[in-house]
Amino acid sequence: MKNATISVLRERIARGETSHEAWVAQALEGASSDAAKHVFTRLYGDAALAAARHADASQRAGVVLPALSGLPVTIKDLYDVAGETTMAGSVVCDGEPAATADAVAVARLRTVGAAIVGKTNMTEFAFSGVGINPHHGTPRNPADAAVARIPGGSSSGAAVSVALGLAVAGLGSDTGGSIRIPAALCGLVGFKSTQSRVPLTGAFELARSLDTVCAMTRSVADCLLVDAAIADTPLAVRRRPLQGMRLAVPRTLMFDGIEPAVAQAFDRALGVLSAAGAIVVDISLAELAEISQINAPGGFSPVEASAVHRARIGAQRARFDPRVAARIDLGMSVSATDYIVMQDRRRDWIGRVEGALEGFDALLCPTVPIVAPAIDALVTDEAFFKANGLLLRNTFAINFLDGCAFSLPCQREGELPVGLMLSSVRGDDARLAGVALAVESALAG
Amino acid sequence: MKNATISVLRERIARGETSHEAWVAQALEGASSDAAKHVFTRLYGDAALAAARHADASQRAGVVLPALSGLPVTIKDLYDVAGETTMAGSVVCDGEPAATADAVAVARLRTVGAAIVGKTNMTEFAFSGVGINPHHGTPRNPADAAVARIPGGSSSGAAVSVALGLAVAGLGSDTGGSIRIPAALCGLVGFKSTQSRVPLTGAFELARSLDTVCAMTRSVADCLLVDAAIADTPLAVRRRPLQGMRLAVPRTLMFDGIEPAVAQAFDRALGVLSAAGAIVVDISLAELAEISQINAPGGFSPVEASAVHRARIGAQRARFDPRVAARIDLGMSVSATDYIVMQDRRRDWIGRVEGALEGFDALLCPTVPIVAPAIDALVTDEAFFKANGLLLRNTFAINFLDGCAFSLPCQREGELPVGLMLSSVRGDDARLAGVALAVESALAG
Repeated sequence: MKNATISVLRERIARGETSHEAWVAQALEGASSDAAKHVFTRLYGDAALAAARHADASQRAGVVLPALSGLPVTIKDLYDVAGETTMAGSVVCDGEPAATADAVAVARLRTVGAAIVGKTNMTEFAFSGVGINPHHGTPRNPADAAVARIPGGSSSGAAVSVALGLAVAGLGSDTGGSIRIPAALCGLVGFKSTQSRVPLTGAFELARSLDTVCAMTRSVADCLLVDAAIADTPLAVRRRPLQGMRLAVPRTLMFDGIEPAVAQAFDRALGVLSAAGAIVVDISLAELAEISQINAPGGFSPVEASAVHRARIGAQRARFDPRVAARIDLGMSVSATDYIVMQDRRRDWIGRVEGALEGFDALLCPTVPIVAPAIDALVTDEAFFKANGLLLRNTFAINFLDGCAFSLPCQREGELPVGLMLSSVRGDDARLAGVALAVESALAG
Repeated sequence: MKNATISVLRERIARGETSHEAWVAQALEGASSDAAKHVFTRLYGDAALAAARHADASQRAGVVLPALSGLPVTIKDLYDVAGETTMAGSVVCDGEPAATADAVAVARLRTVGAAIVGKTNMTEFAFSGVGINPHHGTPRNPADAAVARIPGGSSSGAAVSVALGLAVAGLGSDTGGSIRIPAALCGLVGFKSTQSRVPLTGAFELARSLDTVCAMTRSVADCLLVDAAIADTPLAVRRRPLQGMRLAVPRTLMFDGIEPAVAQAFDRALGVLSAAGAIVVDISLAELAEISQINAPGGFSPVEASAVHRARIGAQRARFDPRVAARIDLGMSVSATDYIVMQDRRRDWIGRVEGALEGFDALLCPTVPIVAPAIDALVTDEAFFKANGLLLRNTFAINFLDGCAFSLPCQREGELPVGLMLSSVRGDDARLAGVALAVESALAG
């Protein structure tokens, strides 16, 4: 029941088996449990309960509630909440001015009546895909009771809050994979929408060219409910038949260094889709090999983050996670000329990849090529940065494309979570969502 | 008659006093005269005459022609014409691939049937407000028969082509004042629209944050006819009454170093407007003093141009105008961090200036604080850069604002031309055009 989707939960509430208030109260109780250690940086118990009670009262009065009304959701520590200083997983921002307004996405969640139970922990300034946080601790991935594994990042607490059943949705962000990586490693559905769908206002900036406001949930449909609440324009989604659907599997880069468990789960998923009539086509997509060349001068995230953090890192270097500071330093050494050329080369690259993907309904690959590593295995910088590179590689390609993507769980019961990533080009979110609904359904069958 | 506006010319043609063909033929003949030396980099005699004949034939057949149909216009050397290498006033691009399509603005002019008589000379790569071109020569300002004065730039040939009556409109571009400066110095009307009105596609880039596709003509109404032909969306312009109109005169920066002739013409214009009932309010607009601080790391144009020209300047430095090369070198030394911070500080500045201008119908100042200097007076780098700074200072403030502006002639008969600049904020083009129509009319009365 903790893993009920929004529609199942709403039905149970409608039948009187539980209430919004009971559900939110249970989430708040769970937030203080051992399993949820390091998941939250702040809780909003009273406000969440008030939203839940309002939903219950409205429902009793005959009001048909918006989908997220009165249900527990979490927001990543990088979203502004009026009256609080936004910390973004750091300690560096302590003492900076408080936000004067809620972030747009947060305000929109409140508008539909969501019960925001708390702010979730994250990689400092969203600057890695691992999810380790030296200041606030690292939330443990709930998928493995035996070994303490990373949750993935940067939306680490968001993923664990949903995986533990403490929220129906975790509002996070995705600059290089920060929604899809933890969704994949924790067994959730993550939807990285096209960047322009949701305003960035009030989201602590990592990299303005790439930052995307989006969420992870337990199903494709739930992701679409959150998108409907936070995006500027609604998506008109129609489930598409798998029969005749054209799915491209890019053989450049995306499968390098893949672990056997991931390869097996991925191949099994492909088999299911083929059996259902999908036409799976291997393509080279050699353009993927250019991404690292184009970013060679320093990459968008280090460069753009260096402008955000220049004053802070000058004054308070010792308070940064040194692994984050190292990447910001890298960004500071890039010339404006190189940065603008990077933008131009990216634009050209996007055009060519969009051309290569014409005629396909989606691109298919593993969200990440490995299962969640043990936290203890990433102590050295070498191990950390190697894992970080592998975690971000596939997902980042879609951010670089300015595209959209879903990560769907494709492991079997009892296996560590593996994500199947379905991707498409900028603005193709509605069609991709129709594909994702069909794929999710086939994988569940 | 050479200075007839479009509507006057169309009436004369409609009455049979002249024809499109005769008018275009006369323009082409004039293009080879001594006065037009260095004005054109290329002529399109056959195509222009074909457009004119088509307009004549259509009119004889009873067709009501679009406003620019069959009338001579010129395009600045930085616009793509399919099949030609775009030179942008340089010799550096010689041998580069030909454009495969017309620039969007050029294609739109052709769509309404304009007779494009030629490409006009310009400052190399649009990189100064003076209009001196060491490769192709400098068009002489027609306003002074005694002294060879600069036409202003960078759209130097565009201005002279219109001032000589060889075109009803000169399509140019405005990154820091390149339409308004030559319009002011040559006695024309220049309209720098909000940047987003006209697509930049096919316009040789100087600075992507600032480049604007726009034109100069002989009247506000003519500028609006060109805008209607080339912009994505039409402006709904209504002439506004001067009575009660609130005009702000910014006393920071804009009047520093002003020449007496300019001050007199400006004050006289203010007097006319006040007498007509306009409420002229001096404001400080101290934000203007911040522009140079924000741009201190290197400025948008040098930085952005450095990315455009990096390969060329590496391989062919000696073929650049050294004054242009010097500014590109400056751009190469700026860090990406500084560039992004410049963007952020500009955005913040725009917001504050927009706030300060609330409640005003337009900002009024001299387009340039000096009359056109003699070409011979700008031989030394010191004199050149000093004049360039003065020429660009006032106009650039409006580019920096991402705003819109008209330059209207306000000198008396027999005086050297002086421009009166009416400016407003981003997207306020329609309202500003209504103001400009009223001001133009008052100044003419």
